[in-house]
Amino acid sequence: MDFRPVLYVNGILLSILATSMVLPMLVDLYFGSDDWQVFFLCILTTAFFGGMLVLTNAGKDFTISIRQTFLLTTSSWMVLATFASLPFWLSALDLSFTDAFFEAMSGITTTGSTVIVGLDEAPKGILLWRAILQWLGGIGIIVMALSVLPFLKVGGMQLFRSESSENEKALPRAAKLASSIAYVYLFLTTICALFYYAAGLPLFDSVAHAMTTIATGGYSTYDASFGNFDTAWTELIAITFMLLGSLPFVLYLRAVRGNISCFFYDSQVRWFLSIVGASIMIMSLYLILHNNMDLLEAVRRTSFNIVSIITGTGYTSHDYGAWGGFAVGLLFFLMVVGGCAGSTTCGIKIFRFQVLYAVTSVQMKQLLHPHGVFLPYYGGKPLPAGVPSSVMSFFFLYALMFALLAIALSFVGLDFLTAMSGAATSISNVGPGLGEIIGPNGTFAPLPDTAKWILCFGMILGRLELFTVLVLLTPAFWRR
Amino acid sequence: MDFRPVLYVNGILLSILATSMVLPMLVDLYFGSDDWQVFFLCILTTAFFGGMLVLTNAGKDFTISIRQTFLLTTSSWMVLATFASLPFWLSALDLSFTDAFFEAMSGITTTGSTVIVGLDEAPKGILLWRAILQWLGGIGIIVMALSVLPFLKVGGMQLFRSESSENEKALPRAAKLASSIAYVYLFLTTICALFYYAAGLPLFDSVAHAMTTIATGGYSTYDASFGNFDTAWTELIAITFMLLGSLPFVLYLRAVRGNISCFFYDSQVRWFLSIVGASIMIMSLYLILHNNMDLLEAVRRTSFNIVSIITGTGYTSHDYGAWGGFAVGLLFFLMVVGGCAGSTTCGIKIFRFQVLYAVTSVQMKQLLHPHGVFLPYYGGKPLPAGVPSSVMSFFFLYALMFALLAIALSFVGLDFLTAMSGAATSISNVGPGLGEIIGPNGTFAPLPDTAKWILCFGMILGRLELFTVLVLLTPAFWRR
Repeated sequence: MDFRPVLYVNGILLSILATSMVLPMLVDLYFGSDDWQVFFLCILTTAFFGGMLVLTNAGKDFTISIRQTFLLTTSSWMVLATFASLPFWLSALDLSFTDAFFEAMSGITTTGSTVIVGLDEAPKGILLWRAILQWLGGIGIIVMALSVLPFLKVGGMQLFRSESSENEKALPRAAKLASSIAYVYLFLTTICALFYYAAGLPLFDSVAHAMTTIATGGYSTYDASFGNFDTAWTELIAITFMLLGSLPFVLYLRAVRGNISCFFYDSQVRWFLSIVGASIMIMSLYLILHNNMDLLEAVRRTSFNIVSIITGTGYTSHDYGAWGGFAVGLLFFLMVVGGCAGSTTCGIKIFRFQVLYAVTSVQMKQLLHPHGVFLPYYGGKPLPAGVPSSVMSFFFLYALMFALLAIALSFVGLDFLTAMSGAATSISNVGPGLGEIIGPNGTFAPLPDTAKWILCFGMILGRLELFTVLVLLTPAFWRR
Repeated sequence: MDFRPVLYVNGILLSILATSMVLPMLVDLYFGSDDWQVFFLCILTTAFFGGMLVLTNAGKDFTISIRQTFLLTTSSWMVLATFASLPFWLSALDLSFTDAFFEAMSGITTTGSTVIVGLDEAPKGILLWRAILQWLGGIGIIVMALSVLPFLKVGGMQLFRSESSENEKALPRAAKLASSIAYVYLFLTTICALFYYAAGLPLFDSVAHAMTTIATGGYSTYDASFGNFDTAWTELIAITFMLLGSLPFVLYLRAVRGNISCFFYDSQVRWFLSIVGASIMIMSLYLILHNNMDLLEAVRRTSFNIVSIITGTGYTSHDYGAWGGFAVGLLFFLMVVGGCAGSTTCGIKIFRFQVLYAVTSVQMKQLLHPHGVFLPYYGGKPLPAGVPSSVMSFFFLYALMFALLAIALSFVGLDFLTAMSGAATSISNVGPGLGEIIGPNGTFAPLPDTAKWILCFGMILGRLELFTVLVLLTPAFWRR
C-alpha cells in the first residue's frame, strides 16, 4: 500500500491543528497566563511535523483507494488526538500523558468526558483549546459523514449517498458541500454565542459554550457545567442548539435555498424529535409523581438533561444521579440512541433505528404471510439492497463492542454501573457516565490508566462508526 | 379465526398437566404432608377444564393455520402456567397469586427464578412439582424448537428445517421425532439421577435435581442450591448434564444411530464449548490473580457457576456476587448467550451468534472489495435467503425488549443492577440475577408485584423466541 497520500493528508490536518492553536495562545497572552509559551511550543512542534509530512509526501497527483481512505480516516483522528494532547500535557494543569491524551481524544471525538478538576480556575487558553477541539471534531465528523462514509458504505451510510457521488465529480462536489456546511456550522455557532451573550454569559464563556453546544461536545468552562449558570434562559438556548446540532446538516443547505419545510418532512427528524419528546414526558411525569417535583421544574430539568444525553452532548445542570433508579435506567439506554445521521452526534443514530424497525416489521408480516413479498421502506422508498444487512451488522457490532468494553472496564476494576455507563458513554461519545465516580458530579480522573485507554478506544470506535476502525484490525486489510 | 383447534390442544395439554400432578400428590401422601389435598383439588380443577376444552372442541379433523399455531403456542404456555400455579397458590407455602404465577411461569419456562424462601422445610410435593414443571417445560421447548419454530420461521429457526418438513409428512414426522427425543430426554434424566444418587444425594433430591439439570431449569430443593451439597463430584455431574442439556437434541438421535462423532463436527457445539471454555479460563485467571484463589478452587467455582449461567440453568454453588466487579460484568453478558438451538436452553443461542458473525465478516470483506460478491456461510453451506434478516431482526428485538424490560423494572423502583440483571435473567430464562436482592444469595420475593409481572412477561417472551409472542400484539394478526 502506498502510504504517501495518507501521510500527506495527515500533514495538512496537522497544519490546520497547529493554526488553530494560535487562538488559545493569543487568549493566554491577553489574559496574562504563562501557558501561552506552551501553546507556542505546541504550534512549533505540530507545524513542524505537519509540514514535514506535507513536504515529504507531496508531489504527483494522488488517487486514493478504499484501503487508503480507511487508513486515512482512522489514522488522522489518532494523529490529531496525539498532537492535540500536547497543550494539556505541558500546560500548568500538570496532567499525565494518559490524561492529556484522554482529554484530547474526548475533545476531538466530541465526547466531552473530562479528567480535569478545577476548570473554574484553569487558564483560559486551555479552556478555549478544549472548545476548539470539539468544534473542529464536530465539523470534521459532518464532513466525513457526508463525503467519506457514504462512499465507504459504512454501517448503512450509503443510504445518504447523493446521486452524483458515484461518478468522478464526487470529490470536487464533496469539497463544495463541505465548504457550504462549514458556513452553516460557523453561522449556527455565531448565533448561539450571541444568544448566550444576550442571556448574560461572559463573552468568553459564550463563545466557548457555543462551540461545544453546536458540536454536541459538552465541554464546559466550569466544573459545574450549566449548573454554574442555573438560569432557564441559558438552558433553553443550549437545548435549542444541541437539537439543531443533532439534525442532518444537509437539510440546512436546503433550508438556505428556501425549502425551510424540509425539516418537518424529514422522517429522521420526526423520529428524533418524537423520541426526545416522549422521553422528556415520561421522565417529567416520573419526577412529578415520584419525586414531588414542580411541573415547571421537572420539565426544565428533564428537557435539559435528556437532550444533553440523547444528543451525546454531555452538559449537566443537575445531579440526575439523585433522581432515582428510573432516571439512571432510562438515561443509560438513551445514551446509545444518538441524533440524526450527518449531524455532530454519535451513538447508533436515528436512521438505523428506522431501518431496524422497518426490517423487523417486514419480518413480522412475513411470519403471518410466509409466501408474501414485503420490502422494508425508508422515507417512502424501498431500502436499497445491502443497506439492511449493513445497518444490522452495525447494530450487532455496536452491541458486541459495548459488551467487550464493559467487560474490559470491569476487568480493570470498575464497578458495574461505572463500567456499563462508561462503555456506553465512550462508544456513543456522550460525556459523563452514571454513578458516583463518572456521573454528572464526578470526572474520569480517578479511573485507572488502563480504563482511560479502553475508553479512548471506545470513543474513536464510536466516532468513526466502528467499521472504519475495526476493518484495520482484520488481517485481510493488510494482505497484499 | 377458528379457535377450536387452539382450545382443543390446550385442553389436551391441561390433561397432561393434571396427570403430572398425581406424582407430587403421591409424594405428599407418602411423606405425610397435608398438601396432598391441595394437589387433589388442583388435579380435579385442571382435569375438569382440560376435559371441557377437549370435549367441547373435538370433533372434525382439524387443519391448523399459521395464525392458529402462533396463538396456540403462546396461549398454551400462558394457560399451563396459570393452572400450574394453583398448587403453589393453595399450598402451605401461603403465596399470593402473583407469587404463585411467577413461580409457575419461572418453572415451565425453565427459568428457575424463585420467590420461595425456606425450600429446605417446604413439603416434598411442592418441591417435586417445581422440578416436574421445569422438566415438562424442557421437553416442551425441544419439541417446539424441532417441529413448530422452524415451520413458523421464527428468528432464523428455519435453518433447522429438515428436508421433509415442507411436505405433508411434516406433522407425522414431527410427532415421531418428538417421541424419539422424549426417550433421549428421559434416558438422560435417569442417568443423571443415578449419578447424583451415586454421589451421595438422597433419592428424592437426586430425581428432583436430575429433572431440573437436564432441563437447564435450575430449581433446587434447597435455598442454598448446590451450595447445600458442596462436593466437587455433585458439581461435576451437574456441569456435565447442564452441558448435555444445552446441546442440540437431534444430535443424540444421530448418536443413537451410531454417529457419535457428530457432536465434534457440529459447528454450533464447537462454538458453544469454546465460549464456555474461554469464559471459564478468563474468570479462573481473574480469581487466581485478583482474589488469590487456589487454582483448583477457582476452576471448580467458575466452571460450575459459568456453566450454570450460560446454559440458563441458574444453580448456584457460591456467592459470585462477592467475586468483585469483573464477575458481575462478565456474568451479566454471559446470561444472554444461551446454548445451542434445539436444546432446553434459552437466550440468544449460539447459532445466532454464528450467523451474526458470518454476516458481519461478509460486511467487512465487502467494505474492502465493494464490487466483490461474498456469501455468509453456516456450517459449510451458504445461509438460505431470509435467514440473515430473520436472525438479525431477532437480535435487534432481543436488545430492544431487554431495554424495555430494564426500563420498566427501574420504573417500578428497582436499582440499576437489579433492573438490568432482572431483565437479562428473565428474557434469557437464567434464574438468579445479580446484586443483593435477586443475586445468588437472594430471591425474587422482595420485588414489588408489578416487577414480578414484568418478569413473567420477559420469561415467556424469551422462552417463545420473542416473535411468537410479539406477533400476537400486532393489529395485523387479528385483522380479517
